[in-house]
Amino acid sequence: MLHLDFHPSGHHFLQIPGPSPVPDRLLRAMSLPTIDHRGPEFGALGLKVLAGIGAIVKTRHPVVVYPASGTGAWEAALSNTLSGGDQVLMYETGHFAAMWIKMARRLGLAPEVIAWSGTDEHVPQAPSWRRGVQPDMIEQRLRQDTDRRIKAVCVVHNETSTGVTSDIAAVRKAIDAAQHPALLMVDTISGLACVDYRHDEWGVDVTVGGSQKGLMLPPGISFNAVSPRALAAASTARLPRSFWAWDEIVAMNKDGYWPYTPNTNLLYALSESIDMLLGEGLDNVFARHERWGAGVRAAVNAWGLPIQCIDPKVYSPVLTGVLTPPGTDADALRRLIYERFDLSLGTGLGKLSGRMFRIGHLGNSNDLTLLAALAGCEMGLKLAGVPLAGSGVQAAMEYFAAHPAGAALKRAA
Amino acid sequence: MLHLDFHPSGHHFLQIPGPSPVPDRLLRAMSLPTIDHRGPEFGALGLKVLAGIGAIVKTRHPVVVYPASGTGAWEAALSNTLSGGDQVLMYETGHFAAMWIKMARRLGLAPEVIAWSGTDEHVPQAPSWRRGVQPDMIEQRLRQDTDRRIKAVCVVHNETSTGVTSDIAAVRKAIDAAQHPALLMVDTISGLACVDYRHDEWGVDVTVGGSQKGLMLPPGISFNAVSPRALAAASTARLPRSFWAWDEIVAMNKDGYWPYTPNTNLLYALSESIDMLLGEGLDNVFARHERWGAGVRAAVNAWGLPIQCIDPKVYSPVLTGVLTPPGTDADALRRLIYERFDLSLGTGLGKLSGRMFRIGHLGNSNDLTLLAALAGCEMGLKLAGVPLAGSGVQAAMEYFAAHPAGAALKRAA
Amino acid sequence: MLHLDFHPSGHHFLQIPGPSPVPDRLLRAMSLPTIDHRGPEFGALGLKVLAGIGAIVKTRHPVVVYPASGTGAWEAALSNTLSGGDQVLMYETGHFAAMWIKMARRLGLAPEVIAWSGTDEHVPQAPSWRRGVQPDMIEQRLRQDTDRRIKAVCVVHNETSTGVTSDIAAVRKAIDAAQHPALLMVDTISGLACVDYRHDEWGVDVTVGGSQKGLMLPPGISFNAVSPRALAAASTARLPRSFWAWDEIVAMNKDGYWPYTPNTNLLYALSESIDMLLGEGLDNVFARHERWGAGVRAAVNAWGLPIQCIDPKVYSPVLTGVLTPPGTDADALRRLIYERFDLSLGTGLGKLSGRMFRIGHLGNSNDLTLLAALAGCEMGLKLAGVPLAGSGVQAAMEYFAAHPAGAALKRAA
Amino acid sequence: MLHLDFHPSGHHFLQIPGPSPVPDRLLRAMSLPTIDHRGPEFGALGLKVLAGIGAIVKTRHPVVVYPASGTGAWEAALSNTLSGGDQVLMYETGHFAAMWIKMARRLGLAPEVIAWSGTDEHVPQAPSWRRGVQPDMIEQRLRQDTDRRIKAVCVVHNETSTGVTSDIAAVRKAIDAAQHPALLMVDTISGLACVDYRHDEWGVDVTVGGSQKGLMLPPGISFNAVSPRALAAASTARLPRSFWAWDEIVAMNKDGYWPYTPNTNLLYALSESIDMLLGEGLDNVFARHERWGAGVRAAVNAWGLPIQCIDPKVYSPVLTGVLTPPGTDADALRRLIYERFDLSLGTGLGKLSGRMFRIGHLGNSNDLTLLAALAGCEMGLKLAGVPLAGSGVQAAMEYFAAHPAGAALKRAA
Repeated sequence: MLHLDFHPSGHHFLQIPGPSPVPDRLLRAMSLPTIDHRGPEFGALGLKVLAGIGAIVKTRHPVVVYPASGTGAWEAALSNTLSGGDQVLMYETGHFAAMWIKMARRLGLAPEVIAWSGTDEHVPQAPSWRRGVQPDMIEQRLRQDTDRRIKAVCVVHNETSTGVTSDIAAVRKAIDAAQHPALLMVDTISGLACVDYRHDEWGVDVTVGGSQKGLMLPPGISFNAVSPRALAAASTARLPRSFWAWDEIVAMNKDGYWPYTPNTNLLYALSESIDMLLGEGLDNVFARHERWGAGVRAAVNAWGLPIQCIDPKVYSPVLTGVLTPPGTDADALRRLIYERFDLSLGTGLGKLSGRMFRIGHLGNSNDLTLLAALAGCEMGLKLAGVPLAGSGVQAAMEYFAAHPAGAALKRAA
Repeated sequence: MLHLDFHPSGHHFLQIPGPSPVPDRLLRAMSLPTIDHRGPEFGALGLKVLAGIGAIVKTRHPVVVYPASGTGAWEAALSNTLSGGDQVLMYETGHFAAMWIKMARRLGLAPEVIAWSGTDEHVPQAPSWRRGVQPDMIEQRLRQDTDRRIKAVCVVHNETSTGVTSDIAAVRKAIDAAQHPALLMVDTISGLACVDYRHDEWGVDVTVGGSQKGLMLPPGISFNAVSPRALAAASTARLPRSFWAWDEIVAMNKDGYWPYTPNTNLLYALSESIDMLLGEGLDNVFARHERWGAGVRAAVNAWGLPIQCIDPKVYSPVLTGVLTPPGTDADALRRLIYERFDLSLGTGLGKLSGRMFRIGHLGNSNDLTLLAALAGCEMGLKLAGVPLAGSGVQAAMEYFAAHPAGAALKRAA
Repeated sequence: MLHLDFHPSGHHFLQIPGPSPVPDRLLRAMSLPTIDHRGPEFGALGLKVLAGIGAIVKTRHPVVVYPASGTGAWEAALSNTLSGGDQVLMYETGHFAAMWIKMARRLGLAPEVIAWSGTDEHVPQAPSWRRGVQPDMIEQRLRQDTDRRIKAVCVVHNETSTGVTSDIAAVRKAIDAAQHPALLMVDTISGLACVDYRHDEWGVDVTVGGSQKGLMLPPGISFNAVSPRALAAASTARLPRSFWAWDEIVAMNKDGYWPYTPNTNLLYALSESIDMLLGEGLDNVFARHERWGAGVRAAVNAWGLPIQCIDPKVYSPVLTGVLTPPGTDADALRRLIYERFDLSLGTGLGKLSGRMFRIGHLGNSNDLTLLAALAGCEMGLKLAGVPLAGSGVQAAMEYFAAHPAGAALKRAA
Repeated sequence: MLHLDFHPSGHHFLQIPGPSPVPDRLLRAMSLPTIDHRGPEFGALGLKVLAGIGAIVKTRHPVVVYPASGTGAWEAALSNTLSGGDQVLMYETGHFAAMWIKMARRLGLAPEVIAWSGTDEHVPQAPSWRRGVQPDMIEQRLRQDTDRRIKAVCVVHNETSTGVTSDIAAVRKAIDAAQHPALLMVDTISGLACVDYRHDEWGVDVTVGGSQKGLMLPPGISFNAVSPRALAAASTARLPRSFWAWDEIVAMNKDGYWPYTPNTNLLYALSESIDMLLGEGLDNVFARHERWGAGVRAAVNAWGLPIQCIDPKVYSPVLTGVLTPPGTDADALRRLIYERFDLSLGTGLGKLSGRMFRIGHLGNSNDLTLLAALAGCEMGLKLAGVPLAGSGVQAAMEYFAAHPAGAALKRAA
């Protein structure tokens, strides 16, 4: 039987920026027996989770839930709205943005990549990866597109590979300022339910979400929130699609069902997640992540290591990227920390391979979980011979002790 | 919190032909904490389940595991091997075959549908839905295709909508007899791990599998077993694909990893399922399902109701379709049975809507589970006013009592 | 890792009269992480379960919850209220009553056993085991006890070894009619939460309860509901006691805590059980069991086998004892049924060893569960060569179909 | 449904010295469906856990497993071997020793309490609570007992209330040196499976164990390991007993069964615990706890707070007691830490009430768990205004980094 016993004792610290630690309640809900996906009890469940995910994405329009992991929802966003050869303006904030670009190419689209191209001391190979989306660059490019060949603008809300949370409302303003009809597509896979996100208010046309980050589920479910304009685009888009096609799913979802077999047990977990998040209150959830991020950054600053995100206005409340000094193999460091301290950290992806590690501060966490993770990092950094300016754990302890969480402790007053 | 309490007491009888009842061990395995999908423990898990699923599909070639439900694996089979406009010979054995055909059309392929077209007393609207694939029809059609425009032959091994298990080895022989280069693609979503299946020996090029039937997992995982010829076809096929693309997955699977986030907790369940199935022995597993099917058919025969499958040579060991008399709304009957007896039965799909119900005999079942299901059917049929020739429960009891299971009871001798 | 795989496939049918099948919700609740039994969250849990168990026992007085299985609560009842050599009037309704008597002897009490002593065709060795408590015998004996040496009257409410549910209100009336001060102690281990029980209204002094029957928990928790008179008796009783002593437990329970470590995870299950039972409504719960009992007895009557309980007024809604014909080894029959059909039945205990089997109709059950169990019995009886008058399964199906459950199906109307 | 959500997010840190954090594997095993405690599968489970617990206690003699929490096993030890009025020599190492003494009195025994009575700077009210059992005091008292009125010597192996692990082999030597026939009874409830324990080799007559400490189960199971001499004593001991009586249990255990309903689901967890502990190797388990204790003590020393145990030779590897400065209410501190940091610490018990807190380092833990707990303590101490000499977290990080665990990481090399 399955053991998961590489470490003989103890609770593993899963501090990667997703999949995030899954709350015990979700794991139990997920283990209830599978029911008939065409029966009455399932229909009630379907309606409940569809309403709940809408509340979290903040939309009154359809949210399409796929029994597939997040990458699939990227493909769904593109293939439902676009046709072969279509031009797409895609902003490269990091590795996941770059992978979405690569996917667009594989699907036969013509992505045009823009990215901030100034100089960067620590990451000269990818300066745009340390900053958020620059809305003025988007506006400028769209203004130039006088014959409206650009069909969509694609941006990543919270770039999981770097720890940067871009300003989506500003991107919408930029598009509007250019009076450009391009659809706005946003990947908030790792942002959703950690940091505020407003599909309707921000005028997003397709929102791409996933289960294994702020929603705290295991991977296996992904989403498209779809604006009326995006739905209209789907009626003329010619990329071949079937599994990802919105039409039948949206139609059957009205009664809480799906045209093909949905991911029953992960929907149980989604139901429980919705109860937890809405029960706590989304604003409390967001404040919780902001506070965690501040504590973790206090630690990184105390170590004297550069935070991957260089612009405090767009620090991610979900994860913090930490650059390791030249000569330090970040992956060897991560392995050492994993083996010695039973802690998983995120790797440096793509252009940052071997040069960074990422600390997730999301999912089923609290102050002590994060302090434990920081202690694992600090011990590992020292064992790896990285010179540190001071104790990050100490700095984070000071931050957390000085800044009590806003939400009152339930019933324990 | 999630209750699943539409019925106030008791274990629900999930006797639809999938999702099948999930064994308790799998549900517990699935509820273990999510781990890092890029860490060492995951790699070991990945290698284990990939080897195991290969043993079950009986192939030495790659099996691609998708974090998506079964319908996705249909799309993967087509999009990895074919190009827009390609001609595909698809045999319509039932609703799922028809849905695969519909998908091929949506993806821009040119499916040519063949089906047995004789007359049928009970199901005149779909005579081919009561019989297995007719290999001679395939052979004949391929012989006519002298310029080899047909790129693939698609058949369903176990048609979930009808309860017919076609002879795949015979289909391969038919293709070979016609000396035709078309790829052979087989959907064994509901057959795999219930009835024998031999990817390599039968010369299948793409096998499509799913998790929620004989593997006894909840839905959410699907498979493509891929022959070297299919892999070669993928290098020239031009249908756009990214999420479903085999190349990167096969490459990364060598170390037990995936290019994007896999379905961690369902892989736990898959690991446990593999242990259970191989531990029992596949031949014992197959014999178990054969015996169940015989018992259930004894009941249907005793009731005097027609079995959907008219040819005893291709009776499915996975499910039995039962035709209701004209004037009996099979869905109203199913609803009555669900409400009164906490039993889910499969609905009549597509051309059989309202005219049949399906009894699944797969997953975490045993003689008494099936007798309970038959009792629920029998009481429901009587309450619905359907005249019955005799007691099906009695007939099944006689069958099960007279035919002990072959596999010895473990350790209890 | 733990497999529980003596049978290679399927859900085991646990139709013994307790431990009863545990609902999935309880098993999940029970698997939540253990918390500090002296912390605030535990205190809230403690208060909740103590209030809930009081509502189920129907008392406004203290209920002492032990982290020990049911036998322990018998000892608690005796040792808290009595002194060495005390005379106790104990009615022998069956094996559990006899075991309680044996315990009283081991503890140094002087039990006086009474029992109906007429003749019985089928069970001449234990005629009182086929009938309920005879209140007039108790009244008569107490009237003779003019010097009030009898300190307590002990009866079993639902005799798990026989399937007889005695009339406790009548026992109280008998004691009152004799104007005797003896305490009334009642074992309702297997009756509680299956059949109505009223600690306060019936004037019971000590009620003994357990977790693994109508409460549907695994074994490991037991109860004493304690009247003010019993509490007063405890202050003078001299049997040595410490673990079972009420005083400290009752005192600490005021805040939801226990003087020593309670059974945390089973209390989780108890909390869930209380929610389920009170959510359904106790009267619905009782009606459910009555209906099940009637269906099962219809089957036994159809077989033509004697029901152990000879008096229809005291048929147990919890279990039905079935006498096997002379020459049929009931335990060999049970073993055959277990091995062939994955069904556990209760054994014949004590004076009925080898002569009966017991069918539990309690816990997480429904009509189909019981029909499955009856099918297992019927097949087993035939395989064992027992001549049957007719089909019990058929009779039970007719009963269940003709008598719909009273409680409406939740939300599925 | 049960929520356990006093804290809205995160994994609770249960660092009390038991109940200890339960491994995920145990929680899942425990949630498997309850089986028939008289069936073949149960018998196999029973034999397995009885053999396993014997291996852990290191005895070839019977181990009696009770479906009751640990306090019950104290009562069992006394009531099986002694008679009313018997003199018992009991050493008071702390609160649990004192509670055992109190129990002996309640049961009608005549405990004679001995304890080290020197002066102690920090704990003048209970100097013996800072030291281990003094074997010479026992030897001296037994030598004086020339008419052999002392029937048993009772000591606590690992005193959970103080963090002191006494030398049991030395106690046996003392008894032997005095050539005294008294039985040796040892409570190792919190020591077992954390620190070496040898029932047979050390000549212990009755070992008292519990489930919720080193065995890592929830509370609800307890043990008596019983020497042949203790069994012999049981045949003449006259304290009333029934539930706790060894005779019937030992007899039925030969086949893996119990005379009354055992704690089925906790036995599942015990089975899993045995697999984990023996799989890791007991010596590795002990080394793990020793290392944890050293790290935690490094922290307490760095804070400059007194460790409750004053003698380094008997520092407990299971927990560390920390004395708070006069004027600091340790329970207010614990509450603050619980509310702010979701960490449970042990309270000061009995004579140490309000003056100490206890850090458990047992159960499902690892370096980061302990560092998190120490961080919670350190932040809490500062918030409570306790002056600290330095950072305990820093000291523990240094210790853990400098002292890698001995056992190699499984399969991850």
